[in-house]
Amino acid sequence: MTERVIVVKVGGGEGVNLDTVCADVAALTAEGQPVVLVHGGSHLTNVMSEKLGIPPRFVTSVSGHTSRYTDQATLDVFTMVYAGQVNKRIVERLHKLGCNAVGLSGADGRLWTGPRKDAIKIIDEEGRRRMLRDDYTGRVEHVNADLLCALLTAGYTPVLCPPALSDQGELINVDGDRAAAATAVALGAATLVILSNVPGLLKSFPDPASLVTHIPKAQIGDYMVYAEGRFKKKILGATEALNEGVGRIVLADSRVEQPIRAALAGQGTVIE
Amino acid sequence: MTERVIVVKVGGGEGVNLDTVCADVAALTAEGQPVVLVHGGSHLTNVMSEKLGIPPRFVTSVSGHTSRYTDQATLDVFTMVYAGQVNKRIVERLHKLGCNAVGLSGADGRLWTGPRKDAIKIIDEEGRRRMLRDDYTGRVEHVNADLLCALLTAGYTPVLCPPALSDQGELINVDGDRAAAATAVALGAATLVILSNVPGLLKSFPDPASLVTHIPKAQIGDYMVYAEGRFKKKILGATEALNEGVGRIVLADSRVEQPIRAALAGQGTVIE
Repeated sequence: MTERVIVVKVGGGEGVNLDTVCADVAALTAEGQPVVLVHGGSHLTNVMSEKLGIPPRFVTSVSGHTSRYTDQATLDVFTMVYAGQVNKRIVERLHKLGCNAVGLSGADGRLWTGPRKDAIKIIDEEGRRRMLRDDYTGRVEHVNADLLCALLTAGYTPVLCPPALSDQGELINVDGDRAAAATAVALGAATLVILSNVPGLLKSFPDPASLVTHIPKAQIGDYMVYAEGRFKKKILGATEALNEGVGRIVLADSRVEQPIRAALAGQGTVIE
Repeated sequence: MTERVIVVKVGGGEGVNLDTVCADVAALTAEGQPVVLVHGGSHLTNVMSEKLGIPPRFVTSVSGHTSRYTDQATLDVFTMVYAGQVNKRIVERLHKLGCNAVGLSGADGRLWTGPRKDAIKIIDEEGRRRMLRDDYTGRVEHVNADLLCALLTAGYTPVLCPPALSDQGELINVDGDRAAAATAVALGAATLVILSNVPGLLKSFPDPASLVTHIPKAQIGDYMVYAEGRFKKKILGATEALNEGVGRIVLADSRVEQPIRAALAGQGTVIE
């Protein structure tokens, strides 16, 4: 059944509308369309970190990728927000709409595992290169598709989020877009929808009129230049998913009515 | 297989030792003994509530039971701590020890459902009776044993915690001891172990020499008089579990080496 699955990633940026996303997930699953929902929580993690007196810090690797600096104290906040508040409030929304959701972090049942980058080379605030060693981030290399298939077959809707589990059994912060892409690949999903608080890939961010509506698979590399900040990871995830058999990726807006249906109908940036 | 299951509840009070509990769970499951672990998080919820500027409040019902006053803001903190930080750090501990843990809240997959007490009659700080209407607490009336059996059969170790789900699909705070008792009943478990930061039921709290070592099932009601504060819920849960077929309940100390094995060997208060 999993080739029929749609994997939907909804970001955790400010302004993302979880209500419309959940309404769409509940309606689709009620029609018999299996959905796996992957979510973020970055904005609320920033807010909570500030409140708890451990302000968020972001680091830029020498290869130009920006990620949250995740020491153990930050990982506690990150895990509370993602796997606690955001995940269970999404699960609650779905149950209120009659959808039998099961929320899991990537650590549960070794759902998402992969190597921890135990030392990353970064460029610090003063522009100097240095090694960061107490950072708990990594990437998803293996997805426990059996657990997801068992849940889907039994009629549950999996709701997934970071942290994942390192090969040494540690909680690690992983990028949600790329984790969603790996999940779509592992399930052999036909479609991956990545929703955020912008209409899709914009040639001139933040001008919505500059939306790129279609990217042929062969030309995806040419569009990386337009990706701002965290959008780089979305394009990277999309590239990985396309290369490993996912037929269609849509980068779309969460802030519209029926955002998943709109994305499936081609609104946003369609990569195929 | 579930009649072989041991349900272990570990409290969330100050001083509870999760490391020794997790080591014991991992060792038992490695020997082929299926375990369902239920945990609390009350102390850390109090700490986090204070840090976030919403100090914990407890209310006493007219029938004499004390519970956390759980409005929506408190429920957010409660859910972050229980289903986020505490649950996933236990899952991490177990994975590091080679135990394939899956952490779930009672809301996931409608694992624990029951009525929300949408209005409870309390006695306030001034000793006056009044109705509390914005409190999200309730009790577990139904356990999704199918989901737990499927996980256990597939080799996973379920790690469960509140919140549960109300019959209207809302997250609700439920008592962990009574939820663990309901879980043991639903699984037909032979044994329920309830670990906390005291050696068991004490006739003269906190004197460890006053430990009640054995309570015959027929006399459990006579011992309620010795139960202080939150221990009332443990005795209540034990009574419910015994009445519905669980053969043996042990109230024991989490702060010893191999706390589960010690409890199974009869250290603590054995009710049967």
